Amino acid sequence: MSATATTDAVTLPHPALDGLTASLRDLLGARCSTAQSEREHHGHGESYHPTRAPDVVCYPATTEEVSRILALCHQAKVPVIPFGAGTSLEGHVVALHGGVCLDLSRMQRIIAVNTEDLDCVIEPGVTRKQLNEHLRDTGLFFPVDPGADATLGGMTATRASGTNAVRYGTMKDNVLALTVVLADGTVLKTGGRARKSSAGYDLTRLFVGSEGTLGVITEITLKLYGIPEASSVAVCSFPDVGAAVSCAIETIQSGIQVARVELLDETCMRAINLHNGLSYPETATLFIEFHGTQAGVEQQSTAMHAIALGHGGSGWRHAASAEERTKLWQARHNLHYALLALRPGASSWGTDACVPISELATCITEIREHAKDAPFPVPALGHVGDGNFHMGFLIKMDSPAEIAEAERLNALLVNRAIDLGGTCTGEHGVGYGKSKFLRREYGDEAIAVMRRIKQSLDPDNILNPGKVLPPASP
Amino acid sequence: MSATATTDAVTLPHPALDGLTASLRDLLGARCSTAQSEREHHGHGESYHPTRAPDVVCYPATTEEVSRILALCHQAKVPVIPFGAGTSLEGHVVALHGGVCLDLSRMQRIIAVNTEDLDCVIEPGVTRKQLNEHLRDTGLFFPVDPGADATLGGMTATRASGTNAVRYGTMKDNVLALTVVLADGTVLKTGGRARKSSAGYDLTRLFVGSEGTLGVITEITLKLYGIPEASSVAVCSFPDVGAAVSCAIETIQSGIQVARVELLDETCMRAINLHNGLSYPETATLFIEFHGTQAGVEQQSTAMHAIALGHGGSGWRHAASAEERTKLWQARHNLHYALLALRPGASSWGTDACVPISELATCITEIREHAKDAPFPVPALGHVGDGNFHMGFLIKMDSPAEIAEAERLNALLVNRAIDLGGTCTGEHGVGYGKSKFLRREYGDEAIAVMRRIKQSLDPDNILNPGKVLPPASP
Repeated sequence: MSATATTDAVTLPHPALDGLTASLRDLLGARCSTAQSEREHHGHGESYHPTRAPDVVCYPATTEEVSRILALCHQAKVPVIPFGAGTSLEGHVVALHGGVCLDLSRMQRIIAVNTEDLDCVIEPGVTRKQLNEHLRDTGLFFPVDPGADATLGGMTATRASGTNAVRYGTMKDNVLALTVVLADGTVLKTGGRARKSSAGYDLTRLFVGSEGTLGVITEITLKLYGIPEASSVAVCSFPDVGAAVSCAIETIQSGIQVARVELLDETCMRAINLHNGLSYPETATLFIEFHGTQAGVEQQSTAMHAIALGHGGSGWRHAASAEERTKLWQARHNLHYALLALRPGASSWGTDACVPISELATCITEIREHAKDAPFPVPALGHVGDGNFHMGFLIKMDSPAEIAEAERLNALLVNRAIDLGGTCTGEHGVGYGKSKFLRREYGDEAIAVMRRIKQSLDPDNILNPGKVLPPASP
Repeated sequence: MSATATTDAVTLPHPALDGLTASLRDLLGARCSTAQSEREHHGHGESYHPTRAPDVVCYPATTEEVSRILALCHQAKVPVIPFGAGTSLEGHVVALHGGVCLDLSRMQRIIAVNTEDLDCVIEPGVTRKQLNEHLRDTGLFFPVDPGADATLGGMTATRASGTNAVRYGTMKDNVLALTVVLADGTVLKTGGRARKSSAGYDLTRLFVGSEGTLGVITEITLKLYGIPEASSVAVCSFPDVGAAVSCAIETIQSGIQVARVELLDETCMRAINLHNGLSYPETATLFIEFHGTQAGVEQQSTAMHAIALGHGGSGWRHAASAEERTKLWQARHNLHYALLALRPGASSWGTDACVPISELATCITEIREHAKDAPFPVPALGHVGDGNFHMGFLIKMDSPAEIAEAERLNALLVNRAIDLGGTCTGEHGVGYGKSKFLRREYGDEAIAVMRRIKQSLDPDNILNPGKVLPPASP
């Protein structure tokens, strides 16, 4: 969806903007645009957040060009906002203070695939689906899979994950090294291609999840994985969300290595049935996948089935064919659209939190109780192996009352997750939508350290200003 | 071993030292010592590096005490060197500029074990063996296992790993959150207990591997794992190092998930035979372990055995009993001592590098060629699933010629690893032994970023000065 309101942030046009735009045109020609339609397209992601368009949109093609653009912006003290596929969910790409949008989607080269080393080097505009398409004949794949077909640059910048994280980790675990351009145009490499290193400060992990506020990512070295010999997908229904989550916990605790374990509540299952012409029981459900050898997969599945029975699980059913498996995961990946169809004309405000898995059932159940009288559907779903869950508020964006209720529920959910030892975002990132919760999560001392790091790398605050870090005083 | 020389670093006693020592005595009583024997004990790790004792040794018991000690040292501008089990291999704990040694080994509380969430919270003085002993009845274990029984604080600070990293990751992957005391005594928490988060800058990973130069770690939240249902250990001989490494690469590439795959060359096998009364063929050998279900483990083992045969592997043999398995891994873990016994009176200078796995055989083979005329044994071993390998120089520390030759080989090895896209240290850390290689590995720009971060957090450079970062000018 594209949001309708614009932000309250009012800043005057940057005095150096005209001169800067001329210099950017000299550098990029037609790849520098001030056309209103392009500016507006780059003023929002896929979230409910108010929009604000940048003043200029640039389409660099190389690290060298990114470096020269940043050097110019740095000199002019004009903000720079990196942009990938525009699928962000917390307002990361909104040009809160105007400035230059750096659209990296044309940097799409796959520079190297090192099959022997199980790694690849890519530019940030490559999307996850493009990469896996490219890898198709190698026997390798890249597992991190957020709902959208995001760019790998955006996924790196927001520390994204998805359904496979319980087995393969998040972007944090799968980025080996980066090429980064700093605020002043300096280019650096954060590491090589070794699988591990204890040499010096972990700059790779510092830039992963920094959401364009510390530097612009222009090259990414990623881990790849051998496609497992066998995989198996199962679906199981449960009497309620608590039972489904308990089954997932016991499974992981018992050393069974699931590749995916996805919770969908009764609202999600209804949406999936309607949208895909399916007829699953409309109750809390787990979608489960195992990877390994044929025998290993079968034993794991049998073991988890036994655990599921102990938690009231019923209707345990294997996807019989590769086609059925694909159909099932497509239904899961398209859930966003299936949910929207439950309430025609509604937008989905999808929120995201992560708690210790023992607190997951408590957290979801409590918030569902708070939401039961909401004037809109509030589906709950989650990557329960990690304790990560989402709730969607299917609201009418022209209803201030519904927006206010969604805001109330969102704050309740996030604050409760933090109080239970969790985090305000498991995988969507902070942007500016979640920055107000960061102080509660980390405390003033940790926020001060983050701020010192930001200041030491971007003293003029030109890199995606207003994102991640909360305002200076509580 | 304890080294014999002292460092060239000459600094005058800190002018504020007497006053500081009096304040520390007020705070800690008998847990603040200036006794020569205690100072000397704290002036070195287990490496060949020249020693230098600190002026004072403190034994704090709580985060609050660490905070107060740091506030005092900060005010006096006196260096602080954190100390754990003293098993460091790159001079991390040598008091290059004198100052206060912060011995954290008495902070040994296991604060919480959350079996449902597969995590625990511990103090930094707990060793890896103590933790696993404590976990014995829970069905859980902590996998990271460097050779020594290091403290988990030291392991966190050096981003340690060990034989299980190919399956369970390194300390980078297994630390969920930290409590850290900054140079001025400020206490902060870097995160909660959620399994993943995309909330803000990754301060946890910034402090993991910072070797006491950015802050002092006083509490650690670690991931734990369910003990797998089944495990299986195999040994296989190969015609040469290259064949063994190729077998390991093909195994990992084919999606077989080994838990451990350790290379030992013919010198290591000779040492193991002599030291343990065993009779393995004295040729390049892999020690392999699989974790999973009984059937999965058997299938993986069968599949890898087939791959091994294709690389000239012979004598594939399973450890028949748990006892035999334990004996085999004990032999591997005690290899350091077995190697020392090959040359009575010698010390072992153990070096460490990591390269993309496709370069591993090249790198090891080249350095072995360079070392073939060395006047001392140069065994090679490695965690080959990660491309991480060690060579040991079994030298007489009273022979300047042998030390010089070891230095030459060490530099050759490290520089070659870096040129092959690798790193100067896979798991031992930088200390001051490897800091001279960091610029070649990362380039001036990345070193400058590391320096800016150091300056922003420790402007007076009191935290473990002289470690990690190379000198300011190339």
